[in-house]
Amino acid sequence: MSVITAIDTHDVRFPTSRELDGSDAMNPDPDYSAAYLVLRTSDDSHQGHGFTFTIGRGNDVQVAAIQALRHHVIGRPVAELCADPGALYRDLIGDSQLRWLGPEKGVMHMAIGAVVNAVWDLAAKREGKPLWQLLADAEPEWLVSQIDFRYISDALTPQDALDLLRKGKQGAAERAQRLLERGYPAYTTSPGWLGYSDEKLIRLAKEAVAEGFTQIKLKVGADLADDVRRCAAARTAVGPDIRIAIDANQRWDVDQAIEWTNALAAFDPYWIEEPTSPDDILGHAAIRRGVAPVKVATGEHVQNRIVFKQLLQAGAIDILQLDSARVAGVNENLAILLLAAKFGMPVCPHAGGVGLCELVQHLSMFDYVALSGTTENRVIEFVDHLHEHFLDPVVIEHGHYKAPTLPGFSAEMHPATITTFEYPNGEFWTADLAGTQLPAQAADTAEKELTA
Amino acid sequence: MSVITAIDTHDVRFPTSRELDGSDAMNPDPDYSAAYLVLRTSDDSHQGHGFTFTIGRGNDVQVAAIQALRHHVIGRPVAELCADPGALYRDLIGDSQLRWLGPEKGVMHMAIGAVVNAVWDLAAKREGKPLWQLLADAEPEWLVSQIDFRYISDALTPQDALDLLRKGKQGAAERAQRLLERGYPAYTTSPGWLGYSDEKLIRLAKEAVAEGFTQIKLKVGADLADDVRRCAAARTAVGPDIRIAIDANQRWDVDQAIEWTNALAAFDPYWIEEPTSPDDILGHAAIRRGVAPVKVATGEHVQNRIVFKQLLQAGAIDILQLDSARVAGVNENLAILLLAAKFGMPVCPHAGGVGLCELVQHLSMFDYVALSGTTENRVIEFVDHLHEHFLDPVVIEHGHYKAPTLPGFSAEMHPATITTFEYPNGEFWTADLAGTQLPAQAADTAEKELTA
Repeated sequence: MSVITAIDTHDVRFPTSRELDGSDAMNPDPDYSAAYLVLRTSDDSHQGHGFTFTIGRGNDVQVAAIQALRHHVIGRPVAELCADPGALYRDLIGDSQLRWLGPEKGVMHMAIGAVVNAVWDLAAKREGKPLWQLLADAEPEWLVSQIDFRYISDALTPQDALDLLRKGKQGAAERAQRLLERGYPAYTTSPGWLGYSDEKLIRLAKEAVAEGFTQIKLKVGADLADDVRRCAAARTAVGPDIRIAIDANQRWDVDQAIEWTNALAAFDPYWIEEPTSPDDILGHAAIRRGVAPVKVATGEHVQNRIVFKQLLQAGAIDILQLDSARVAGVNENLAILLLAAKFGMPVCPHAGGVGLCELVQHLSMFDYVALSGTTENRVIEFVDHLHEHFLDPVVIEHGHYKAPTLPGFSAEMHPATITTFEYPNGEFWTADLAGTQLPAQAADTAEKELTA
Repeated sequence: MSVITAIDTHDVRFPTSRELDGSDAMNPDPDYSAAYLVLRTSDDSHQGHGFTFTIGRGNDVQVAAIQALRHHVIGRPVAELCADPGALYRDLIGDSQLRWLGPEKGVMHMAIGAVVNAVWDLAAKREGKPLWQLLADAEPEWLVSQIDFRYISDALTPQDALDLLRKGKQGAAERAQRLLERGYPAYTTSPGWLGYSDEKLIRLAKEAVAEGFTQIKLKVGADLADDVRRCAAARTAVGPDIRIAIDANQRWDVDQAIEWTNALAAFDPYWIEEPTSPDDILGHAAIRRGVAPVKVATGEHVQNRIVFKQLLQAGAIDILQLDSARVAGVNENLAILLLAAKFGMPVCPHAGGVGLCELVQHLSMFDYVALSGTTENRVIEFVDHLHEHFLDPVVIEHGHYKAPTLPGFSAEMHPATITTFEYPNGEFWTADLAGTQLPAQAADTAEKELTA
């Protein structure tokens, strides 16, 4: 009987801040990073891969949090684990001592998500299916058993979920065929990073349209005059028929969000994303009332299903942007997809960073094939960074994500990526940092000198 | 010029689960713990002490998070730091890479709270005042400068805060005198832990009344028949004039919270505490409508000022239970006290665990002397555990917290406590664990055996 024998963890960081890739109003210098884990099994026929995405410092804290979960996983029979990932998910969120560190939010919750997602990767590999297909083929009753309805039963009951999933089965085979032929619609954020020049923005926006994208996204929120100029340039570059989303990355308070968004309304933004704190449900509702017909979108930093539930109950958003690695993995994202389906809310997932596109495509594709049954007004974010580090990278054609066909959750990185970018002792960092002091090392040195 | 030379961290854990002290419906076996830190200074005349409270496993993750903040602190001039703790607070919550791990919630946010609170401890020691007095003596303009109004300006502006603090100055000297004479009202949770027998509950409830407490608290939520029996026994023991609060520790969904609380209404509970998830603002509002006139209280797990703001805006609570060590320290708690004052909301802080009573008394005493100006319907939780480990432990007389007079934030532990209870290599744990495997060690061993 095969059992889980080990969880290997790796602090993997990419020096993306050097090029201002990924720069926005709140995150001027992200180094896209992954607290990456490998579930090893005793028969070694398959491994499970998962990760938490971070933007640099603190990736080590995330690794420590994953390690704090090891005693729930090591020794567990693989067949049992893969037949019911929900059992492990419940054990992890139910560890009463670890629960104090959340509950169900932040560092511990993202660590749980990384471990749970690695189990789903392993389960899909063993089934010989890409994860989206494993989920789409699954029985509604079994999918319902994978969900924790605690704290959401006032908005979604197990019976509601079952009804939605049974309805989703109708026509699923035809939709799966169409998905394999056409892919799933994408939009691109690559033109719009705040650190890019106007020339680069215009060039990339035109290229995006030429490549078949029908929506692009611009970062805003640092300086209003700059935003007016950049939105005007982008609108001129793409013409009136391409959707332009704008993204403030939580930069504003409620009143300011309304004023600033309305000041950009002339350029016909499709949605305003993360106008304020992801914790501010009532604030988003007020902003939505104040900026209509511009739509309000959020989700990449929404901590769990309970906050998503309230965003829906309060009429606070027009677009739900789930993230594959912020909440407690596939199980909690199934709850979030079902909440969205119950409220008729379009899901346009957050992606980018490192590996988020690879993961989240599976969730949207399952949703299309076997839950909401539509891609209308639904697009997955696409950012063209760091895909080369994955064994099964996303493929974009004509502005669509091509459906993965390899077994698994597309989460596995090349071994060479780990040895090169493991921090701080991988080959890249060893060479790069020769003669340099990292913040933590500088603190060590200062501490040694000051206490000598 | 004195500078911060080092941050020493300690993983300190107490074996409280052995006696079922602290047992409730969600936390059956807490080992009260502190991720404890010491800010060392180059002139060594004073040190700053602070901690995050946890209940056991994961205390090591919390220590890792505190260490991830070191580069913001080491080398900082002490005089500058203590003159403006808000500058460090802003640097810590504003670290754009670390912010990704929250933002402003969970492990990273509590770590920031521990560091910020240690600075306030140091500042109060240097001023030669207990922290409550330092805050009460401070100029309103300076206190306002210590607050981050981001994401709360729709409910509390800097001008609102200034007006409230100026009003609070009226009669402050008389109230400080009264506080020193009479102390601040307390209530006790010691009788009501879920693991205690009815006999122990009744004996401790009667003792509490004899000692001068006018409110006790019972844990509920595991089994309704047990709760009915225990509430009846407690009400008989204390008579009709003593307030009995009940506490479900997040055990219920919305509908269940309403039904269960109403099933206990015959015993006249004063408040129902943590009826559901701390993240569920709208859920608390629905519960409050459903259980009136029983009051709704929450806060010990409320992650930050933004969620407290919404609980107030939504009319979701009757009692605000701030915690000294859950949010980003004194600075964020000043914002929360001001929000409560603006909305006329009584603050009855969460305490207990290890050291939470020692810390939070300072915040309520400041609030009484120089902000809300009243103790009406306000009580600080008191639990009689682990105070002996502190240099300046709380003193309860006639059901009141005596005002501390020693300089600082009462956060400093005895050196012997650290050497005894540091985990897993302190003297207690070394002896206790001889021949035993901790969860993490068991995982190590299993991993070694399985991968051999």
